[in-house]
Amino acid sequence: MGANTFTIGVDLGGTNLRIGAFTPGGGLMEMIQLSTRLRDGREAVARDICTGVSQLIDRHAPDFTLGGVGVGSPGPLELPAGILRQPPNLPGWDGFDLRATLEKGLGLPIALQNDANAAALAECLLGRGQSLGVDSLCMLTLGTGVGGGIVLRGKIWDGITGMAGEVGHINVCTQGGMPCGCGSSGCLEAHASATGVRKLSEIAIVRGAKGLAALQAKNPAFESRDVAELAEAGDAEAKAIFENVGRWLGTGLASLVNVFNLPLYVLGGGMANAWELFSPALFDELRKRSYVYRLTEDKTHVTTAELGPDAGLLGACLLPLHGVT
Amino acid sequence: MGANTFTIGVDLGGTNLRIGAFTPGGGLMEMIQLSTRLRDGREAVARDICTGVSQLIDRHAPDFTLGGVGVGSPGPLELPAGILRQPPNLPGWDGFDLRATLEKGLGLPIALQNDANAAALAECLLGRGQSLGVDSLCMLTLGTGVGGGIVLRGKIWDGITGMAGEVGHINVCTQGGMPCGCGSSGCLEAHASATGVRKLSEIAIVRGAKGLAALQAKNPAFESRDVAELAEAGDAEAKAIFENVGRWLGTGLASLVNVFNLPLYVLGGGMANAWELFSPALFDELRKRSYVYRLTEDKTHVTTAELGPDAGLLGACLLPLHGVT
Repeated sequence: MGANTFTIGVDLGGTNLRIGAFTPGGGLMEMIQLSTRLRDGREAVARDICTGVSQLIDRHAPDFTLGGVGVGSPGPLELPAGILRQPPNLPGWDGFDLRATLEKGLGLPIALQNDANAAALAECLLGRGQSLGVDSLCMLTLGTGVGGGIVLRGKIWDGITGMAGEVGHINVCTQGGMPCGCGSSGCLEAHASATGVRKLSEIAIVRGAKGLAALQAKNPAFESRDVAELAEAGDAEAKAIFENVGRWLGTGLASLVNVFNLPLYVLGGGMANAWELFSPALFDELRKRSYVYRLTEDKTHVTTAELGPDAGLLGACLLPLHGVT
Repeated sequence: MGANTFTIGVDLGGTNLRIGAFTPGGGLMEMIQLSTRLRDGREAVARDICTGVSQLIDRHAPDFTLGGVGVGSPGPLELPAGILRQPPNLPGWDGFDLRATLEKGLGLPIALQNDANAAALAECLLGRGQSLGVDSLCMLTLGTGVGGGIVLRGKIWDGITGMAGEVGHINVCTQGGMPCGCGSSGCLEAHASATGVRKLSEIAIVRGAKGLAALQAKNPAFESRDVAELAEAGDAEAKAIFENVGRWLGTGLASLVNVFNLPLYVLGGGMANAWELFSPALFDELRKRSYVYRLTEDKTHVTTAELGPDAGLLGACLLPLHGVT
């Protein structure tokens, strides 16, 4: 790829669809943001993608050479086929051949990955990984759910069918864990996501947590960030919830550190903003549960992500440049 | 490497030291087996290794070209340095620079790995992986402890300091789990090893298990294989122990499948002989806990290892041929 190469990245979400034009030297040159028209059906969304990609190609192809089109999609996404398998955030898309549809619509091959893997690649090559000078990481995105992605020596590890990196579904609570959308219970996602914090708060309210009850009375649709504010203000029950989140994250990370021995584990997503609230318990649990961490603490970084909400789009832009097909 | 290449492999164990000469075409040509003279100190053991390796080189160098010397050592082993870190099975070896000592003694570079990783490489390239035509796997060795190794696309994944693959220390019992030698509790190793089965049997005896109590009365030093025999004869409490072992293995494998999405997970070691006793519960738990497994069941093999106790030695012989230094 020459200095004059550009790529197009597509970040397909259940709510928003973002398409960007990117150069390795200059970053995002331009971005189109649309809402994802799920009600109009998957073919309509695919047409929106193709239209947006074609617009950006037309606009920048005179000045740059197209290095490829990358697409990050919600999962589960079967790769290399490119077929969606019961994706919870794209209802009605089960069995949809996203790759064939887009490649036909564009008349171009695409580089396809699930969105969490794309975000992990960006965080590795352009975010915290770059800052720390490492080329491998495991990323956990703490949002409505807990997404994840693994990059080993600069390449996404996506497994035999593209479904690796589901670190949100590591078990961290084997007895009496909360039910998880995946069909199991006690997954990291069920406990350490924004949804998990909301549910844990509801349980605490039933058990008599006054500060949380007052929050709910004032704002019945309260979210994890409201619970975090309450914790920051000193509310004991709200603080206890984030301490538990830290313990579960530490338990999950202990398993990951023992298995992967990576130089970097990054936490992204909205819930990562509560780092100060949950990280002491996280490190306490991680040290207790992982002898590999204890032996390698100076070489094992556990910290927040750098890129924020653009990670997914940036990652999609990087896919064609880093061996993804 | 030509057809005329041979390698030397060293399988250093806490009890036995085995040194073999190997050709890719013909397998093990010759093996030296010694006891590991731990009482005489680590330097004496290192001398035994160098003497044995030199003997085999002298014997086969006239007919073959030496492709390298591979050494599999108990861990934790810090790589690439080659220094042992508090190895539980080599008391007194903490901080020992195994690589420098052997390379100086031999006057040759060595390819060094921990023994479980070496065994996983052999199982992948010469055992079940070869039989199934896959080049990636995760191996769990169910012995006194639970060792592990990960091979991704034909190469050992050993992490940033050589300590990856410790799948025996995935947490499978977060509340009230049995204490583990690693300092944590509820690790797979604490529950699904031969030691775990012995302890679970002792607990069952205290709780009134008559068949197990009779076994203990007859043979106070009874082992997991005796418990397996009792289970095979129909004893309900002994059967329940292996069913629990299966559930813990299934829980640990569910986390591994969700994170790695590999084509193959192999169980080796003496306890794997109880496969018929524990595997129904293993698959039941794995299906329940891993949606990645449910989506990929036709492509995800979970089965026993093929190579048996030679895996570690064969793996050591393979190390110099597969990019390990």
